[in-house]
Amino acid sequence: MQTATRLRAKQLALSRSLRYGHRLVSTTPRLFQQQQQQQTPTPIVPPPANPNSRWRSFLQFVGRGTIITIFGGTAAFYYVSQKDRHPGPQLPLDPAKKTLVILGSGWGATSLLKSLDSADYNVVVISPKNFFLFTPLLPSVAVGTLSPRSIIQPTRYITRHKKRTVSVIEAEAKEVDPINQTVTFTDNSEIQGGISSTTIRYDYLVCAVGAEVQTFNIPGVKEHACFMKELADAERMQRVFMDCLESASFPGQSAEEVDRLLHMVVVGGGPTGIELSGELHDFLEDDVKSWYPELAGKVRLTLVEALPSVLPMFSKQLIDYTESTFKESKIEILTKTMVKEIKDKSVVLQMPDKSIKEVPCGMVVWAAGNKPRKITQDLVAKLPEAQKERRGVAVDELLQLKGTNGSIFAIGDCTATSYAPTAQVASQQGAYLGRMFAQLARKEDLRHQLNVLEEAIKIVDQRPATPTNDTNTNTSDTKAEELKELVSAKERIERLLNKTKITPFHYSHQGSLAYIGSEKAIADLPFMNGNFASGGMATYLFWRSAYLSTLFSLRNRTLVATDWLKVKLFGRDVSRD
Amino acid sequence: MQTATRLRAKQLALSRSLRYGHRLVSTTPRLFQQQQQQQTPTPIVPPPANPNSRWRSFLQFVGRGTIITIFGGTAAFYYVSQKDRHPGPQLPLDPAKKTLVILGSGWGATSLLKSLDSADYNVVVISPKNFFLFTPLLPSVAVGTLSPRSIIQPTRYITRHKKRTVSVIEAEAKEVDPINQTVTFTDNSEIQGGISSTTIRYDYLVCAVGAEVQTFNIPGVKEHACFMKELADAERMQRVFMDCLESASFPGQSAEEVDRLLHMVVVGGGPTGIELSGELHDFLEDDVKSWYPELAGKVRLTLVEALPSVLPMFSKQLIDYTESTFKESKIEILTKTMVKEIKDKSVVLQMPDKSIKEVPCGMVVWAAGNKPRKITQDLVAKLPEAQKERRGVAVDELLQLKGTNGSIFAIGDCTATSYAPTAQVASQQGAYLGRMFAQLARKEDLRHQLNVLEEAIKIVDQRPATPTNDTNTNTSDTKAEELKELVSAKERIERLLNKTKITPFHYSHQGSLAYIGSEKAIADLPFMNGNFASGGMATYLFWRSAYLSTLFSLRNRTLVATDWLKVKLFGRDVSRD
Repeated sequence: MQTATRLRAKQLALSRSLRYGHRLVSTTPRLFQQQQQQQTPTPIVPPPANPNSRWRSFLQFVGRGTIITIFGGTAAFYYVSQKDRHPGPQLPLDPAKKTLVILGSGWGATSLLKSLDSADYNVVVISPKNFFLFTPLLPSVAVGTLSPRSIIQPTRYITRHKKRTVSVIEAEAKEVDPINQTVTFTDNSEIQGGISSTTIRYDYLVCAVGAEVQTFNIPGVKEHACFMKELADAERMQRVFMDCLESASFPGQSAEEVDRLLHMVVVGGGPTGIELSGELHDFLEDDVKSWYPELAGKVRLTLVEALPSVLPMFSKQLIDYTESTFKESKIEILTKTMVKEIKDKSVVLQMPDKSIKEVPCGMVVWAAGNKPRKITQDLVAKLPEAQKERRGVAVDELLQLKGTNGSIFAIGDCTATSYAPTAQVASQQGAYLGRMFAQLARKEDLRHQLNVLEEAIKIVDQRPATPTNDTNTNTSDTKAEELKELVSAKERIERLLNKTKITPFHYSHQGSLAYIGSEKAIADLPFMNGNFASGGMATYLFWRSAYLSTLFSLRNRTLVATDWLKVKLFGRDVSRD
Repeated sequence: MQTATRLRAKQLALSRSLRYGHRLVSTTPRLFQQQQQQQTPTPIVPPPANPNSRWRSFLQFVGRGTIITIFGGTAAFYYVSQKDRHPGPQLPLDPAKKTLVILGSGWGATSLLKSLDSADYNVVVISPKNFFLFTPLLPSVAVGTLSPRSIIQPTRYITRHKKRTVSVIEAEAKEVDPINQTVTFTDNSEIQGGISSTTIRYDYLVCAVGAEVQTFNIPGVKEHACFMKELADAERMQRVFMDCLESASFPGQSAEEVDRLLHMVVVGGGPTGIELSGELHDFLEDDVKSWYPELAGKVRLTLVEALPSVLPMFSKQLIDYTESTFKESKIEILTKTMVKEIKDKSVVLQMPDKSIKEVPCGMVVWAAGNKPRKITQDLVAKLPEAQKERRGVAVDELLQLKGTNGSIFAIGDCTATSYAPTAQVASQQGAYLGRMFAQLARKEDLRHQLNVLEEAIKIVDQRPATPTNDTNTNTSDTKAEELKELVSAKERIERLLNKTKITPFHYSHQGSLAYIGSEKAIADLPFMNGNFASGGMATYLFWRSAYLSTLFSLRNRTLVATDWLKVKLFGRDVSRD
């Protein structure tokens, strides 16, 4: 106890001496007296230190800390944001370097771009979108929790910070010729220049074009359903949802029609479908209730899944937790139920007992599966010997396209692998390729050096031992020495070349996360050879921080964080713009 | 000087005593000694007050003030935002009240809704947009300075805070029948219920439908130009602008084609055209230069105006200032120049010397004039006797539609008045109607009371003077007294009714403001029967604060202010979403 008291007194003295620097000499003895006084309690002036003043010093300490943190943080934040905003000059394209063409601007391509040392290559990025989209947060955009531009990042924001100039071309790759090593691409956008289609040669090609929505040829899906794949899909879903609310509040609408318009069906029990249902539920609870009080109670959400359970990648207890949370939220889950047709005003379902049921609804969101894009299918068709998969292109353990000479790589959702088609896989594959291309460049460099050395050895070897004026040196000795040196250099480089191994890609699962509404999330994290499953409010905070840290830039992090704050303060917008 | 020193010492004492409340008694005499010591400088311990400690107290004072302000401000902000977000229950619709139908959700309608006491009427708002759009900031949205949702406010955010329930219907008014007092409207949106068109009866109708874009039947305007009227227009312009940049950076584009794609033409030298040009210039300077360094220098902006000068509503010196600022910004202004045709890749101009010139360009933005909507034209056609104007509906000084029985009012851009078609006029007219409807309701009420009194007088007058058992009172006396009272009440109400005058609408011009790019704005403000003209950076700050304070809600103010901050930190987005 006494030690604790003495310590506190010393702290007090220190904080005081900091405050009254000029009084340091006179104050310290006084406080020393105080300390002594507490050890031998005799009534000596000044009176014992009032506990209030300790509190005060503590508060002042905290206050100063806060102010310093705020100012320092603001300055650092400003510095980083301005550095991000004004990239410096870059090295020009170098004809001596090999051309690396990257198709796509999604998780795989962006992750590759981030990790790539662009000084080694002339890099060309070809994608119909000139930005990266943070897909896991799309459901949040669909209900207005986040602003669309908060989760996108122009590809140039990354490429302009690379060492060497990277060409970013907004165009759709139409054809890859693996024999001649060319790629043909077209500008399909509204505004086109005199040239809108061209073909370029590549030395290396990375196919990271992703996948498109799989409709399983179910009639009406394309015509009547909303999707959750691109930014425009999320914006469209928001408009359709608000339109349903507005049409339901049209005067004279029958009760039956109101019920139909306010029945929202989400197809697909994967993370996208689950998160969207959760977000829709939040939107209803937090906002629709305030602004459409006459309708809010009538909105119904149904989730349809063909498999026996939702979220197959999560552990059983988390699936149960999700199902019970959805039950509380009054979201109906229909498992083992298949969509047979989507009509203008209804969805036709095949129930678990094989009976067919037509359910009236206002909106259907389709979040059920991927299929390869046309360019991927074409690539598969061009290599019939090696490519047998219909799900996508087959790659080896180095992510090289099977059946090619090693000049084509493929990552992400366009590949047919044993991995799940997730952002996490694509992102790790992109980062792997970034490292691999550095190794490749190093190997090229070493091989080049080797060639030069071999050439030099040949030249020296063929040189006749001509006598020189300098009698001190024996020319044949010189030649032998030179040769010895060259050979030893060559051997060293050969050793280096052998050491520069390209290791196969290895996926390290970091866990699965999903938001399930009502400020609850679930997480399945690998932990010490086992699994750590958690669900609830705390996991929700973890979900938020994990997503924030996964966002690629300070800009996106700030935008998403302020959007969350905005929604907390002002709610979500119900305008149908 | 001595007084000042004493004062400062007292302040010091006070601040110290606040800090060391418990030492007050002992500290004060010491400071008193200090004070004396300064008057008679003899070396008495303690030493003279160190100026550092004065600084320290000052800083502590400031620090505390800051902390209190921050906490208090945050709490107040949170309170207001939550109050805005959770409107309470409202009075139900009352069949006894008159029905007031408002067509539109723009400046006029929203201003009317804000000022209206909805307890007096059953209010119905009909508009194809379920939100209010802050039109003056559209050019900022078009270049990405502001997020689209920052400048819109759902109409329900206003109506849900009114005393009585207001029906908000997302539909387009198709026909007004001034004889039978009905309005027919249709839900034109993608999703429709069983009923999507209906007719309702009104007692009062306010026509605030605004105007649509005037193309003067110039060929190609509708097909090839972007507009700057609705939110979707601004979003489209942003997409087209980015598309021009991307197409210009397509590999192999000819220099000529690059020049064409990067030539942006704005038609219309009014505030919209000027602000858009200024914002485009800022976007080029601040952002395009960073992300498209190879293109930024090649982008050209041209402003085309048919009149001899831009911004005719501003004073000469401000027009000159704008023109010289544009010259510095390398924005070309072509006055006395008319657009003859807009083609896919060029604009055909008639120059001041009547020569015809075809100018290649990537984008044309049309910001030149308004014309009445179809419903306005129909209304004019239905009242051929009183309505002669083709610009819009003619109204009297009470804003009643000429040629009607006083049940239809019109405000804003759909009217043909001597006022400019500005937000300011519409907004003042809306607020005027809000007050006027309160007066009308009061008059109705008084008239109702008068009717009741007249009825009562009639009944009492006709009553025979029957004798009662009570002999103390004379029944004929009672009757006379009753009558006298009733008549005096009637007279009082008649006086009140005569006093309740509806004064004509009077427009009070608050000045004109426009942003002209490069962080400069111009302002023409009426001042002491004269005019106060100012332009530059300070005016720019005034412009910002004026716009912030004109925004209708704390929500919009916060969103716009944070958007400005975001752009300062992270720049504008160059994604083409």
